[in-house]
This record gives sequence, structure tokens and C-alpha cells, in this order.
Amino acid sequence: MQLNMKTNEAQDLCFVFSGAGNAKCKVAIVMCRSSSDAGRNRHGQHSMILVPMDTAGVKLIRPLTVFGHDDAIHGGHFEVHFENVRVPASNMILGEGRGFEIAQRRLGPGRLHHCMRAVGLAEQALELLCQRAASRQTFGKNLYQHEVIAHWIAECRLMIEQTRLLTLSAAHALDTLGSRAARKQIAMIKVAAARMASKVVDCAIQVHGGAGVSDDFPLAQMYSYARTLRIADGPDEVHLSTIAILELNDQLKQARARL
Amino acid sequence: MQLNMKTNEAQDLCFVFSGAGNAKCKVAIVMCRSSSDAGRNRHGQHSMILVPMDTAGVKLIRPLTVFGHDDAIHGGHFEVHFENVRVPASNMILGEGRGFEIAQRRLGPGRLHHCMRAVGLAEQALELLCQRAASRQTFGKNLYQHEVIAHWIAECRLMIEQTRLLTLSAAHALDTLGSRAARKQIAMIKVAAARMASKVVDCAIQVHGGAGVSDDFPLAQMYSYARTLRIADGPDEVHLSTIAILELNDQLKQARARL
Amino acid sequence: MQLNMKTNEAQDLCFVFSGAGNAKCKVAIVMCRSSSDAGRNRHGQHSMILVPMDTAGVKLIRPLTVFGHDDAIHGGHFEVHFENVRVPASNMILGEGRGFEIAQRRLGPGRLHHCMRAVGLAEQALELLCQRAASRQTFGKNLYQHEVIAHWIAECRLMIEQTRLLTLSAAHALDTLGSRAARKQIAMIKVAAARMASKVVDCAIQVHGGAGVSDDFPLAQMYSYARTLRIADGPDEVHLSTIAILELNDQLKQARARL
Amino acid sequence: MQLNMKTNEAQDLCFVFSGAGNAKCKVAIVMCRSSSDAGRNRHGQHSMILVPMDTAGVKLIRPLTVFGHDDAIHGGHFEVHFENVRVPASNMILGEGRGFEIAQRRLGPGRLHHCMRAVGLAEQALELLCQRAASRQTFGKNLYQHEVIAHWIAECRLMIEQTRLLTLSAAHALDTLGSRAARKQIAMIKVAAARMASKVVDCAIQVHGGAGVSDDFPLAQMYSYARTLRIADGPDEVHLSTIAILELNDQLKQARARL
Repeated sequence: MQLNMKTNEAQDLCFVFSGAGNAKCKVAIVMCRSSSDAGRNRHGQHSMILVPMDTAGVKLIRPLTVFGHDDAIHGGHFEVHFENVRVPASNMILGEGRGFEIAQRRLGPGRLHHCMRAVGLAEQALELLCQRAASRQTFGKNLYQHEVIAHWIAECRLMIEQTRLLTLSAAHALDTLGSRAARKQIAMIKVAAARMASKVVDCAIQVHGGAGVSDDFPLAQMYSYARTLRIADGPDEVHLSTIAILELNDQLKQARARL
Repeated sequence: MQLNMKTNEAQDLCFVFSGAGNAKCKVAIVMCRSSSDAGRNRHGQHSMILVPMDTAGVKLIRPLTVFGHDDAIHGGHFEVHFENVRVPASNMILGEGRGFEIAQRRLGPGRLHHCMRAVGLAEQALELLCQRAASRQTFGKNLYQHEVIAHWIAECRLMIEQTRLLTLSAAHALDTLGSRAARKQIAMIKVAAARMASKVVDCAIQVHGGAGVSDDFPLAQMYSYARTLRIADGPDEVHLSTIAILELNDQLKQARARL
Repeated sequence: MQLNMKTNEAQDLCFVFSGAGNAKCKVAIVMCRSSSDAGRNRHGQHSMILVPMDTAGVKLIRPLTVFGHDDAIHGGHFEVHFENVRVPASNMILGEGRGFEIAQRRLGPGRLHHCMRAVGLAEQALELLCQRAASRQTFGKNLYQHEVIAHWIAECRLMIEQTRLLTLSAAHALDTLGSRAARKQIAMIKVAAARMASKVVDCAIQVHGGAGVSDDFPLAQMYSYARTLRIADGPDEVHLSTIAILELNDQLKQARARL
Repeated sequence: MQLNMKTNEAQDLCFVFSGAGNAKCKVAIVMCRSSSDAGRNRHGQHSMILVPMDTAGVKLIRPLTVFGHDDAIHGGHFEVHFENVRVPASNMILGEGRGFEIAQRRLGPGRLHHCMRAVGLAEQALELLCQRAASRQTFGKNLYQHEVIAHWIAECRLMIEQTRLLTLSAAHALDTLGSRAARKQIAMIKVAAARMASKVVDCAIQVHGGAGVSDDFPLAQMYSYARTLRIADGPDEVHLSTIAILELNDQLKQARARL
């Protein structure tokens, strides 16, 4: 189970957990501020703590839907409240204040994994698009003979290819240089993959017409999933800000090297 | 009740009807080819016919979902088959071969009505966006103080305003010049309104983060609805082709007038 | 003559003037900080001052080009330095600290005028596009019969129409409500018109191919001009920030009115 | 010297040559229809022929500009007419009807070379953008601290990176699989690189304001150059149509392989 999209920060200890409704879910990994010591830097104030779901004070409040679906098959997303929840100090993972360190090490591969799935999903959507374009006619032509649709096919292939290459490049950086050095690559692919998947699925739906939003095809479901990718693991905008800072630093280093 | 998104044209008499599952639904208006007389022009081969739902041969096959929802509250969308359905000749509306004429007269106001609703929906989404941007903080700033989000607010207002004005202009043309003369205006607003609504709701969701795709806000539902607008009443691409032809004709007329 | 795009703020009194190279140019209207009195608000520290070009200390340093052209026909853009320039106090227009007031009153109509010209320019570009699309063939079809080009025609007409309506609406607001109340409308049309003109001219160039960037057509020149509109009279981004603030205020007022 | 953008096809033998005005230009490579034999396929009707510039009947008509510049440093672009020009049969390169074969073999590497230059140009533009963003202030902040500009930096880096990877991938395909097998990759990168360069330079100009369109920076010149890339070597739209056909073929092959 995994800490997820926060929807309410008014109460400090109100979370949304993915999978919390699943009977097999026994333990939550909670990341929270464990120290407000001004002496520590911003990234050293949070810890990850194991919290058994049957600990006193842990309350499942209500399930939350994603585009109207409860994702119950995976256990669903639940609003969970913590009231005076206490666990042994030994439940802290790795050590106090090392929450960000764990997150950073883990999130890189996690994000990349989402990107790989987004590429696969887009490939499937493009395959469906091409099949439809080859099998349906409007105004006396096969759909793929409509130049606008042909160009969508080209644009989709172009987007998928560029994203696939960036995914491979980010994975290579992660494998060979490590999480920290691969941060810019991973932030880039996170943004690119979510956008690309949304756009490819959108084209595929349009080529399918009404059928594309029905459950005769997996496209409607893909559409919702691709949309959540732009929010999940941090909204794209946070990653764009990260890329910008890293780029400015890189430019600065290069400028100095040229002196 | 109303003829709707066709998902299967292999069988000539297989339709998708919106509202067919509603107990109050007693009559279908069917538009179909009533003549293949080569002597008639393309637009004179279709008629509109009243078909009572309890006519022998009318079969409700299955409900269809829209983005996973059955819209059951409105009666749902149903695949309906017609097998050797026969009705009295007097059930034909207005006269044989006048189906397009009816559709054109009726679709103009119908499309405009969808556009008006799209503008209203976008206004509500922008209101939610602004409320969220004013009430939430990230990285020590209110969301609206993030320049990127501020610019989204500006872009949304700009899009809504341009679409509202074009809607009013199309409505004025429809009222004063009639359906035929307003065709270009109506095709334009059909395309513009659907796009605009999709984009504004998309921004509003992004500002809400995970909450935006949950059912705590109406945005997830708006998102699906806005997406269908780009397909309903003819996909945007058909309307763009119409606008192009009308524009080329207008340019030709102006060029001749200048001679 | 008119104060224009600042390219160097290192020296306080280094300006770029449009028209400064014209022999008829006798007087500069300089807007500068005339007071740093902390008691005054930010908008009350600037004044507009008439400076005869032959005043001691006024130096024309060099002409500046715009996309490689010196616009010499209008007098050109000149870097101008002011060193210990002194003029009589009576040269101050309207009164000390009223520079912004003058600018605001004057810039509204000025911006709108640019928008009107942008709409006209786009109309001309679309006319050229349509003529070319109707007179040239590639791959055995007239260009306008290529669906992608037909859709460009439609998109251009749509953009022009939406911008024309917003221009008229902003002009009406300016006439009936005044500069201040029309600020949001004028900021919106400033952004919309520049973008629209850039996009329409870009399409027209693409339809013309190599001829589009040559001087056989006015499109290359229009392209540069349209690009400068996104910078002139304040870059679009400043106007988007203005729209956002005004929109948030309007939303706040409406929210209060509903209470 | 090289056959270039055709601006007038009314006269069969009217060309635009790049470099024709250069004193060193002694020979033109002319690609023209050398046979209209219906027995040959479409791609076997053209040949490449060496035509000395001093052959009787070769006439330099007039120079043509590109965005107002005559590119005279490279010899300029000239409209050239051929009237009853005759050369020995031995001037035909490789053999009759093999013009397309030569073009295809040569255009792949040629296009790729343009893409590599586009990536380099974009890198330079982004460097200038970052320098400007780090050295200028507006509204009391460095430009890079404006979130919108920071996100431009991120988007530019993302676009450049995706294009660089696709360029490398296309070059690898060209080297290892040959021109024919690399066609899809090369068509993709042709489209992607031109767009990317246009967009990055556009952002860099906006960050520079008025200075960006002046000749104090190379950005104005880059802007025109990047725009021509979307036309040169065949307009992007032709390449998108090529990608679509190749993609549909690839999908068909995969579908058959799955049977």
C-alpha cells in the first residue's frame, strides 16, 4: 500500500490511501513530518513509518472514486483519518528524517515504470486507431484516407517514438548514474509520457466516434487513466519547475566551464 | 427521443438511441434512407419516420456506457435493432426525402443549445478553479500566486469570452438570417465550444489535483461530458470541413465582387 | 514619437525610440520615474515629460533592426542616450506622478487599434491562403482539396471570427465604460489578436511553400510584424497576469454577491 | 548548387536555385521529367542532369529573398529560366529515370544533417534564453523566477532532448539499415526538428523582448531560418502523410504476424 494523492490538508492526519479497502491490506507506509527542528533542512524533517491498519485510531472514512470508478478491484482509494495513532519507534524505516531520501530513491524507478506503461498503453491505442481507420468508411473513403486522420496517425507515432526514446534514455541514466543524477531525465519523461498518452488516446477516441467513449473499446478507460497520470506522482507542473532549476544549474556549470 | 451516435453500420438497421431505456420512451424518430433513386440528389434520399417502440421487430439489445456511466437517469443509451419493422406511411414526417431538411432546421438550434450549455459548464469549472486557487497553498504560496496557474485562469477567461461572443453571434445569425445562412457560424461555434469546455475543465482538474478526478467535485463528470461534445452532433472534423467549403465559397464571391 | 521597447536597463537613461531617426522627429515623450518618494504609491512615481530632440545631452547612439529590417521608412528604431538632460518643469505633461494615468488612458485605444490592424492583416493572409489553395495543385489535387489544408482554412476563419468579436466587444466596453472598466477586455484582446495573427499568417506561408517566405507575397513581412505584436505594448505574459488578477477579483465579487 | 523550392510551376522550366548568384557556381544539378512513358512507374520518369550554368538558354531572372534577406553571402536564391537548353546525354547522372533513386539516397542524410543543425541551433537559443533569464529582472524578480518562464525553460529542454534522441535514432537506422528502411524515422525527425527549433527560438525571443527581434542577438535570424525548415526538403505535411502510410503498413504486418 502506498501514500497517495492528498485531497485535504486542513487536518494534518487525513490521507487518501490507494488500496486501503482491500482485505489483504495490513500495513500503511506513512510519510509525515517527524520533526520541525529548524536546525534540520527542509528535506530532513520527514520520516517514513510503518503503521499496521489495525492500530487504534486508524479510521477508514470513505471510498473515493476516480472519474466515477471506485477501482475496487485494487482495493479502492480511501480517505483515512489518523487520530492519536501511536506505533513503536522501531517502525520508522531507515531512520528519522530520511523519508525524502527513501522517496527519492524509490520514486525514480516508480515514475519510470508508469512511463513505460504509458508507452504501452499508447501503442495499444494507436493500434486500435489504425484498425478502425482501416475498417470504417465515411463519405465514401476509408477513414485512414482522410488526410486529417492520416496525419493523426503520423503525429501519434511521432509522439510515441520520442517518448519511448526518452524513457529508454532515462532508464539508462537511472541504471548507470543513479537516482540523483537521473532526476532531470525522470522529471522530463514523467511530463512527456502522461501528455503523450492523453493525446494518443484522445485521437483514438475521436476516430472511433461514439464507440470510442463506450465500453466496447478500452479507450474510455484509458482516457481517464491517462488523465490521472498528469496528476499522480506529483502534478506535471512540479516536475516542470524541477527541470527548470536543474537546467539552469547545468547551463551555469557549462558557462563556467567555458570561462 | 432522438437518433444518436451510430456505433455499428454493418447492419443497416442497428442504431444507438439515447433515452431508449426510459420507461416513458414510447416513440423513436428514425432517420433512414427511404429511397435510393439515383434521380434524387444525395440530400433527398432520407426521411424521418415515427416508430412506436412497441412496434413488432424493434428490439432493445443492450445498454451502452459513456465513459463507464450508463446515464440511466436519462434512460441510458441503447443499442436497438430493427428487424422487418413496418409502420403506416402516415408516420413519415413532413414528406418523403425531407429528412435532411428537418435535420438541418432542427440541428442548428440544437447545436447552439449544446454550445450555450458548454459555456455555462465552463463558467462553473472556472469558478471552481478560482475558488480552489484562492483557498489552497503549495510551496508556501496560494495556488493563484503561482504564475502558471494565474495564466491558466487568464487563458480560461479568454477562451470562455471568445466562445460566448461567437455563440451570441451565431444565435443572432440564426434568429435573423435563418438556419441556412447561419450554417458557417453554427459549425464554428460547435467546434469552438466543445474544445473550449474540454480545455477549461482540464485546467480546473489540474488545479484540484487528486480531488479533481474524485466525486468530491463535478469536474470529473464534466470532463467526460465535454469530451463527448467533440463527437456528438457530428465529430468536429465534419464541421471543420463544412466551414472550409463555406469559407472558400465566400472568398470566391468576394473575389468576384471585387472584379 | 513614442517611448518604446526598452532593451537595456543597466543605464537608467538609455531608451529605444521608434521614429527617432526621422528628420521630422523633433520631440520625445519620455516616461520616467520622477520621484522615489516612498509616500507615493507605485503608480504615482512616474511622469511624462516633453524632451526636444535637440536638447543638450540627447544622443542618438545607433539604429536597431526588427527581424533584420531597419523600418527606416518610419524613421527607424534608435538607441538613444540621455546624459544630464534638463528641460523646463513646464514640459511635464498633466502633472507630476501622472505618467501612468496618461499611459493607461492612451494605451487602451492604442492597443485596440493594433488589434484591429491584426484582424485586417489576418483577413488578408487568409484571402491569400484561399487564393493559393484554389489555384495550385499537388499530388493531383487542388491544395484546398487536401483535407489538412481545408481544416487550416476553417481554423483560421474560426480564430479570426472569435478575435473580431472580442475586438468589437472590447471597443464597445472602452467606448461605453471607459479605459479602466475595459482593462480586462483590452488585455484579453491584446493577447488573442497577436496570437491569432501569427497563427493565420503561419498557415498562409505554409500553403505558399517557398513563395510564402519570398518577397513575391507580403506574408514574410506579415510574419515578422505579427511576431512583434506579442512583445509590443507589453509582452503577452504581462497581460495574462493582469487578466488573472482582474478575473480573481471579479470571481470574489460574485462570490460575495451570492452570500 | 542544388535544386530548391519551386515557386512557379506554370512554366515547366522555371526553377529557384539556391546559390545561383555565387560567382563560383558553374554547374546546376537539374531534376526533371525525362520521360512520360506510361509504361514506367511514377518514380521512374525523372532524371538528374548536369547543366553548366553557361549553357545557352540558361537565364538568371531575378534574386529571391527569404524573409527579406537575399542570403547573398551564399550566392542567394535565383529564379532561373531554361529555354531550349541542350546538354550532352552523358550529362545524365547514374542513368535515365533514376532521379528519384538518387534523391532518396541523398535526401535521407541531407535531411538528417538539417535536423542536427536544428538541434544545435535550439541549444544555442536555449543557452541565450537562460542567460537572459538569469541576468534580467522584471517586477522585482529575475526572469527565471517567473514560473511561466521557468516552465518555458523546462519545455524547451524537454523538446530538445526528445528531438536529439530521435535524431540519433534516425541516424543509427540510416547507418545500419539504409535509406529505405530509415524512411519513417527520417520523415519523423524532419517534422519534429523543424517544429522544435521554431518553438525554442520563439520562447527565447519572448524572454528577450524587443532585443530578441533586434540584431543584438542572433534570435531574429534563427527565427526565420527555423521557419523555412518547415518548408524546405518538402513541407512537413508531405512527410506526415509518408509516416502515416508507413505506419499503417507496419501495423498491417504486425496484425498479420499475430494471426
